[in-house]
Amino acid sequence: MSLDDASQKPHDRLGRLLADDMGLVNTLIRERMASEHAPRIPEVTAHLVEAGGKRLRPMLTLATARMCGYVGEDHLRLAATVEFIHTATLLHDDVVDESGQRRGRPTANLLWDNKSSVLVGDYLFARSFQLMTETGSIRVLDILANASATIAEGEVLQMTAAQNLATDEEVYLKVIRGKTAALFAAACEVGGVIAGVPDAQVAALNAYGDALGISFQIVDDLLDYGGDASATGKNVGDDFRERKLTMPVIQAVAKADTAERAFWQRTIEKGRQEDGDLEQALALIAKHGTMDATREQAVLWADRAKAALDVFPDSDIRGMLVDLADYVVARVR
Amino acid sequence: MSLDDASQKPHDRLGRLLADDMGLVNTLIRERMASEHAPRIPEVTAHLVEAGGKRLRPMLTLATARMCGYVGEDHLRLAATVEFIHTATLLHDDVVDESGQRRGRPTANLLWDNKSSVLVGDYLFARSFQLMTETGSIRVLDILANASATIAEGEVLQMTAAQNLATDEEVYLKVIRGKTAALFAAACEVGGVIAGVPDAQVAALNAYGDALGISFQIVDDLLDYGGDASATGKNVGDDFRERKLTMPVIQAVAKADTAERAFWQRTIEKGRQEDGDLEQALALIAKHGTMDATREQAVLWADRAKAALDVFPDSDIRGMLVDLADYVVARVR
Repeated sequence: MSLDDASQKPHDRLGRLLADDMGLVNTLIRERMASEHAPRIPEVTAHLVEAGGKRLRPMLTLATARMCGYVGEDHLRLAATVEFIHTATLLHDDVVDESGQRRGRPTANLLWDNKSSVLVGDYLFARSFQLMTETGSIRVLDILANASATIAEGEVLQMTAAQNLATDEEVYLKVIRGKTAALFAAACEVGGVIAGVPDAQVAALNAYGDALGISFQIVDDLLDYGGDASATGKNVGDDFRERKLTMPVIQAVAKADTAERAFWQRTIEKGRQEDGDLEQALALIAKHGTMDATREQAVLWADRAKAALDVFPDSDIRGMLVDLADYVVARVR
Repeated sequence: MSLDDASQKPHDRLGRLLADDMGLVNTLIRERMASEHAPRIPEVTAHLVEAGGKRLRPMLTLATARMCGYVGEDHLRLAATVEFIHTATLLHDDVVDESGQRRGRPTANLLWDNKSSVLVGDYLFARSFQLMTETGSIRVLDILANASATIAEGEVLQMTAAQNLATDEEVYLKVIRGKTAALFAAACEVGGVIAGVPDAQVAALNAYGDALGISFQIVDDLLDYGGDASATGKNVGDDFRERKLTMPVIQAVAKADTAERAFWQRTIEKGRQEDGDLEQALALIAKHGTMDATREQAVLWADRAKAALDVFPDSDIRGMLVDLADYVVARVR
């Protein structure tokens, strides 16, 4: 590895190593977004897919397939599959519910309408399903079917757990496994499955993706209470305003005295938020040190992700996947 | 067949013949609706699945599998699969868009909220995907993946075609193939595939389901302009108020003079509807005889459905599937 390489972020280095494959995945994504009958479809999906996201999930499939010595084209189909599933999930997430949540950002449902977001999301799910079926691997389909169910359950659980102060770290873990880690895990696992590696390595890939996804989401939730909006694209306090219970708040609620508990009940459970409440929430989070405690959890999961890769022989790409786990938590160090 | 049998509706006779299997399908549906993590899920789906619908789609899978001599349990899984897909589609259909369409009926999104309808629909899609994967048949998965894409495309096309007077019978056919016939066709086709019948018979089952679905939807759309609300559960004029272009209107628009065209532009394209407009629409439909012309199309497709079954040897169950096609159009005779 050259000095130049080493000076890059792990995500960028992976991206460069996988650039040819990623180019083919992008072509496949554009091809499969097309719809003869319904030209509205590419219009809506392009808004999301072409928005220049990190493409982290497809990259995980390409990277794990390559690390496992896969030769063929199914890794391209599966990389496109996971990106379609991710995009469909984003479209459905962005459907506003009655309380008019999700402020400030121009989501697809604002640019078009709720119905477009729902139906185009369904179309992307169907397309992803066609793509994965083309691999002809029931085992791959089984993994992705189970991941889909976990994602959907996680989303429903998140909805019912929101505004409920009884939400504890166990429920939170289930939610983020669903909303993030399940697809990370599946994206990694299928890379090994199509390469035909032994079960222990497939399980290790699942464990890596699961732990990476959990770490990633904990960091994302942490940044919501202390990130730089220009770097993250998120505004501090979005989760607070949407009354979502994430780790920094769950831990602060667990340590709350009577007055603090009343504050959380009013702002999160009852949703009666006033000017200065976000500042008060941040002060309580600081008082109980839950930013640091949350950061420690993210580091713990990143360490688990790295450890899972121990079963693979040393290689450039394994090194990058290890570095990626560090990079995920480096965003909050 | 006894006289008693013959006096029943074909749908009821099929239901009795398949009662044992349908009982097992219902058990499977209830089992797979359950969610350990998100108890909201069965609550929402029970509203739809247990609402005592005709269960026409799962019945088609059970009937075709039996007609083809299938022995095993995959027909139960696939019958539950198509019912889950159907229910998920209904949930997503019922998500109100900005214009507040869908009046009068308590849909799941009114009883709960939009977000529940979207996410629980996704959960049912994922569950259906798990169920079909359990059959281990890539061919079955391919059929259902393609059907899913056709359904989603049809829904998007319907959305973009609504309020557009340029919608012609060709576009209408694509829409109803997507919203109805694709799942009917897949439900029938997989029954033959798991039984391992020759390709010509599989193709015939697809053709039967496709034509039956088209006939069924044309009749449904026809009833919207002249049905008995107590029998159909629909109110006359729902489609008119929602500015959907279905066959009776498409044909009336094609025959409209200048004044009539202005009427359709105001009411359908611009959506400026006033008291008496539905009566005027019905008068124009009557003037151009498009109810009868639409009915003829429904009969034509029912005849195609029946003809498709000619490749199968005579049997009680084939007779009932033939009768079912007649029954579908008998609703408007």
